Amino acid sequence: MDPLRQQFRDAMARLGAAANIITTAGPAGRAGFTASAVCSVSDDPATILVCVNRSSSSYPFVTANGVMCVNILADRHRPVSDSFSGFTGHSREERFGAAHWTVLSTGAPVLEGAAASVDCVIEDVVEKGTHSVLFGSVRAIALGQAESALIWWSRDYHVIGQPLG
Amino acid sequence: MDPLRQQFRDAMARLGAAANIITTAGPAGRAGFTASAVCSVSDDPATILVCVNRSSSSYPFVTANGVMCVNILADRHRPVSDSFSGFTGHSREERFGAAHWTVLSTGAPVLEGAAASVDCVIEDVVEKGTHSVLFGSVRAIALGQAESALIWWSRDYHVIGQPLG
Repeated sequence: MDPLRQQFRDAMARLGAAANIITTAGPAGRAGFTASAVCSVSDDPATILVCVNRSSSSYPFVTANGVMCVNILADRHRPVSDSFSGFTGHSREERFGAAHWTVLSTGAPVLEGAAASVDCVIEDVVEKGTHSVLFGSVRAIALGQAESALIWWSRDYHVIGQPLG
Repeated sequence: MDPLRQQFRDAMARLGAAANIITTAGPAGRAGFTASAVCSVSDDPATILVCVNRSSSSYPFVTANGVMCVNILADRHRPVSDSFSGFTGHSREERFGAAHWTVLSTGAPVLEGAAASVDCVIEDVVEKGTHSVLFGSVRAIALGQAESALIWWSRDYHVIGQPLG
């Protein structure tokens, strides 16, 4: 591998980030995947971005449906996160069996008990290398508990705040 | 304020993220600012993004110079972070007095002792609402210690791993 590419991976392992599950639903069917490459973009109008590998099995679903919900995870969601990461070998539909879901505005699955769920219409897609940056125009938000955060750093989970189990 | 906008701010306070100092140097002069809205985009080619408010005093410098270095902070950099956040009232040049700096490829200041420094040429700028998304094509990387991470969450600093002081 190109040395810069390996250094980049090692540098990005040092960039701590929230663990999230991105969901979608619509004519193409529902799907979901984990992502730590998620950023606030602007609060006027409220806009969020998600970077996703275009070779991901969930990518065609999220772009075909044109909607996504960013579910920011709490400590207790590690098993759900593992399922949506693909580690457990669950099918696209089986992944949703590990938690309870509701909806807000767009119909994308909203994780019950998430620290926050940000429900969006995808208003722009920018391709960069292997990945696409999905820009979400926020339509509705559910705020959950804020006592702890599940952070992906140094290729593992870490918890900030009060672990709630 | 629009209720959705306030909810969005509260949701984004729950999205934990690494604390970074973004620096630039070149014909326009050197400048730097803190940012937590930083994401890995792709490792092929190595690309990173930074979201920045276009009304930020540093914005004209980073776009005029066309280069930036993303310095991922460790626990001991809280005072430097406060300085680059503008909390301390330091001038653009005074901010750099709080730490030692080197350079890699582009000439943008590289923070000595950062968890990692990712030196980039800005290859694309996408405007969204009040902010611009700066896409950095990575030219060089310095890897520092990886024992701790400084995370911005719930409107405050938090440390993961071993605080090194």
